[in-house]
Amino acid sequence: MNDQTRSISRTGGRAARRAARATALPEHLRPVRPGLEGGWLKPLTQEGVERIHHAALDALERIGLADAPQSGIDYLTAAGCILGDDGRIRFPRALVEDTLAKANRSVTLFSRDGRTDLDLSGKRVHYGTAGAAVHMVDVDGREYRDSTVQDLHDAARICENLENIHFVQRPMVCRDILDNREMDLNTIYACCSGTFKHVGTSFTDPSYVAPAMELLHMIAGGEDKWRERPFVSNSNCFVVPPMKFATESCQVMEECIKAGMPVLLLSAGMAGATAPSTVAGAIVQAVAECLAGLVYVNAVKPGAPAVFGTWPFGLDLRTGAMTVGSGEQALLTAGCAQMHHFYDLPGGAAAGASDSKLPDMQAGWEQMCSNVMAGLSGLNMVYEAAGMHSSLLGFCHESLILGDDLIGQALRCVRGIEVTDETLAVDQIAEVCLGGSGHYLGTDQTLGRMQADYVYPTLGDRTSPKEWVERGKPDLIEKAVARKNRILAERSPARFDAALDAEIRKRFNIHLSS
Amino acid sequence: MNDQTRSISRTGGRAARRAARATALPEHLRPVRPGLEGGWLKPLTQEGVERIHHAALDALERIGLADAPQSGIDYLTAAGCILGDDGRIRFPRALVEDTLAKANRSVTLFSRDGRTDLDLSGKRVHYGTAGAAVHMVDVDGREYRDSTVQDLHDAARICENLENIHFVQRPMVCRDILDNREMDLNTIYACCSGTFKHVGTSFTDPSYVAPAMELLHMIAGGEDKWRERPFVSNSNCFVVPPMKFATESCQVMEECIKAGMPVLLLSAGMAGATAPSTVAGAIVQAVAECLAGLVYVNAVKPGAPAVFGTWPFGLDLRTGAMTVGSGEQALLTAGCAQMHHFYDLPGGAAAGASDSKLPDMQAGWEQMCSNVMAGLSGLNMVYEAAGMHSSLLGFCHESLILGDDLIGQALRCVRGIEVTDETLAVDQIAEVCLGGSGHYLGTDQTLGRMQADYVYPTLGDRTSPKEWVERGKPDLIEKAVARKNRILAERSPARFDAALDAEIRKRFNIHLSS
Repeated sequence: MNDQTRSISRTGGRAARRAARATALPEHLRPVRPGLEGGWLKPLTQEGVERIHHAALDALERIGLADAPQSGIDYLTAAGCILGDDGRIRFPRALVEDTLAKANRSVTLFSRDGRTDLDLSGKRVHYGTAGAAVHMVDVDGREYRDSTVQDLHDAARICENLENIHFVQRPMVCRDILDNREMDLNTIYACCSGTFKHVGTSFTDPSYVAPAMELLHMIAGGEDKWRERPFVSNSNCFVVPPMKFATESCQVMEECIKAGMPVLLLSAGMAGATAPSTVAGAIVQAVAECLAGLVYVNAVKPGAPAVFGTWPFGLDLRTGAMTVGSGEQALLTAGCAQMHHFYDLPGGAAAGASDSKLPDMQAGWEQMCSNVMAGLSGLNMVYEAAGMHSSLLGFCHESLILGDDLIGQALRCVRGIEVTDETLAVDQIAEVCLGGSGHYLGTDQTLGRMQADYVYPTLGDRTSPKEWVERGKPDLIEKAVARKNRILAERSPARFDAALDAEIRKRFNIHLSS
Repeated sequence: MNDQTRSISRTGGRAARRAARATALPEHLRPVRPGLEGGWLKPLTQEGVERIHHAALDALERIGLADAPQSGIDYLTAAGCILGDDGRIRFPRALVEDTLAKANRSVTLFSRDGRTDLDLSGKRVHYGTAGAAVHMVDVDGREYRDSTVQDLHDAARICENLENIHFVQRPMVCRDILDNREMDLNTIYACCSGTFKHVGTSFTDPSYVAPAMELLHMIAGGEDKWRERPFVSNSNCFVVPPMKFATESCQVMEECIKAGMPVLLLSAGMAGATAPSTVAGAIVQAVAECLAGLVYVNAVKPGAPAVFGTWPFGLDLRTGAMTVGSGEQALLTAGCAQMHHFYDLPGGAAAGASDSKLPDMQAGWEQMCSNVMAGLSGLNMVYEAAGMHSSLLGFCHESLILGDDLIGQALRCVRGIEVTDETLAVDQIAEVCLGGSGHYLGTDQTLGRMQADYVYPTLGDRTSPKEWVERGKPDLIEKAVARKNRILAERSPARFDAALDAEIRKRFNIHLSS
């Protein structure tokens, strides 16, 4: 690279800027959007995929899962599982294959306003937050403090404003609400009054599902409306890896299914601690556990909407600490996405979280590594994609905002390279070189595609060193703080209307001020 | 994810730490190393690859390249090219195909000590620096200042210490040396006295090649030794896109080839300015230009070692400013790697550079995005992979050091997922679950693979928030500064012995103090 190639016509630049201002692109021409199709990153060979599948079937048949609740034992044995003398439930291969053939593969996760529904089919990619941090990261003071319901509500409001955050699974625990039932209900209130996008929550007790449903029916305008378009799903850590059902979470799951709420079958093993240390082995176990979950869900209600949530995490084996920002994590997640496609099931896994305490360079490289690989592998639901630090212990609003740029870039990669006569551009090359201007900056082809083809960062800096100095050397984090303040200064459009809000507050102890 | 899954046995953690201390892994078992094979990321379909190939052949036949020096016209017409009345040299399809069949596809880029030779074959991946920044980024003062020969030498010394930096193409221009001839000679001195790794340079004038060879023969211990293992290659910006030869650079290239120096055929178009704005079109033009270069090289000397350097860059079309940190950039580079594999030619492209001014979160996500995609696509030479900021205008030592962690992680992804009976681990799962300890932390399988399978960051932080506070909230950049100071406090092992150094200094005006 030399300086010769760096200078370009400023005239062309002005023409391009004019064109940009004059054009407003329709939605379908936006350079990136939710649900772009990935799938052209394949860390596993076809043989590898099949070996993992067979290993998972083996594990289900030979080892099975312990600790199902009595209701689960009843559902599963009725479906054809075998309860062993050791209390473990084993899954005959044919039963798993039958379930796979019949499972719901056209899950839609609804938004509240119908504008950002998520179609979880094929290799369509969506990015969003997930939980559950117990700390709020304060970038100004470089402090970790307990996260609150207000932090959660603010996160939802910020997500509502970020184009590349497609769903809002509750990223933080409301630690200022000590009663678990109240916390679960306020979690729903705080998220849904902050965003219209699809919300994910996680109930801590089966008995909280009924009052939550009451709240959700009120928000939806009736049970029928809720059941038609359930805009909240439940994240079920239905297993305690390795190969044990999480008894209470299974009971929560049963309640959710009956209430028409989609469930995320979340298996969060840690490679080297609660799952085998090898990437392939951790995937085998996660797949086996989620297949068990799938049989369970379909035994409760055939075709109930479920996301195949193989979420294996990494571990730093030197210290025994969880790690989520590593290359191993990116491989775990991308490999899982390939398994989802093998089964043609809506799937999700974790990517985009960082081990770093703050939104620094490490956070940037860790978040991009797994986010872009997850997207390229065609993962339907990329959970933990923005804002998450300290190996899931801390959530940061500024990082969430910067994540919007980061994910926009990842999505541009997912979109890939379009090859047509027009994009190959031989005629354009000929025109420019043979008697033309000698450059492409002002050509119709360039101006015509400059918005549809290119993603421009909102806060990412592309100035020259000179401009950067002239602008006072803007700091990335300070820009994110400013954007956060602008967003939170506006009234949330997702807030419930006054009458409904009053009714909700009469019925439930809502901690957010009205 | 809930807290339940996060706690693990501390006993197992201690056992793992003991095992780590007790084991020293042989080189071939290291989790990552230079030359790992990528290639399982394929942004183009096979049809897309072939269409780009045919489009490039079309462009060479119909449009050809202008501005070859007279020597080049002579070489190329003798080889079968056609000089048109418009002064453009056109390349018959059959000539390009013949060249492709005969070109050197087993290029080795040698190190000076034989320990880090680079085998550019197949889809083997190597990461390194490249040029040419004109500023040094000072992280303490957040300042951009002119880069100097000392900065360049320090960069080489730092690279010598970083495992995941595999070659050192001169990342900065020595702006304190005003005479171009002296600058070129001191660039070689500063790099080679700082590192044993393969060095890349770029001559500004054909007449500087002869004295540079004199210097290199002295360093090598004779011309025969130099020609046997040339440890410096030349980066030739042999074209001024679109489709024009860079007259002087072509003359430099001819001199290098004659002197036994490998060349990098570098075509650095900017999509939307000096190349078509579409990703596919920019690749077509870069491929066409590099094919022209390949014919040229092989016309000068059949089989001369050359790297197919399709380096298309991105542009921010709103402002006309170059951008290198975008998703489009990652696609340009990964698509180019696929073309190199189609031709089975040693290839290189740019990835890992950032538009950000400082090593902040943006720098992290931009550097990882293109670096990991370049590696996954199996690019032989990933140039600009570390330390580069401000769209190639600024180089930063601290960022270079952090890049070692970042690239280590990218390489772990390149290594991929190993699927064997052992890694699938069904027997291990059975053992752990059926009467075993219930976790994997202390198993022989985990302990046996904890170093061979996992990459541990050197400076990346994985502490808990509590530990992080106890350690005084260490700052990533400050840790990089400390590592830089430690490296630069040591005497460079790559320095020439005193007698040779004196001889060199007698013959040349060396600016670095001895």
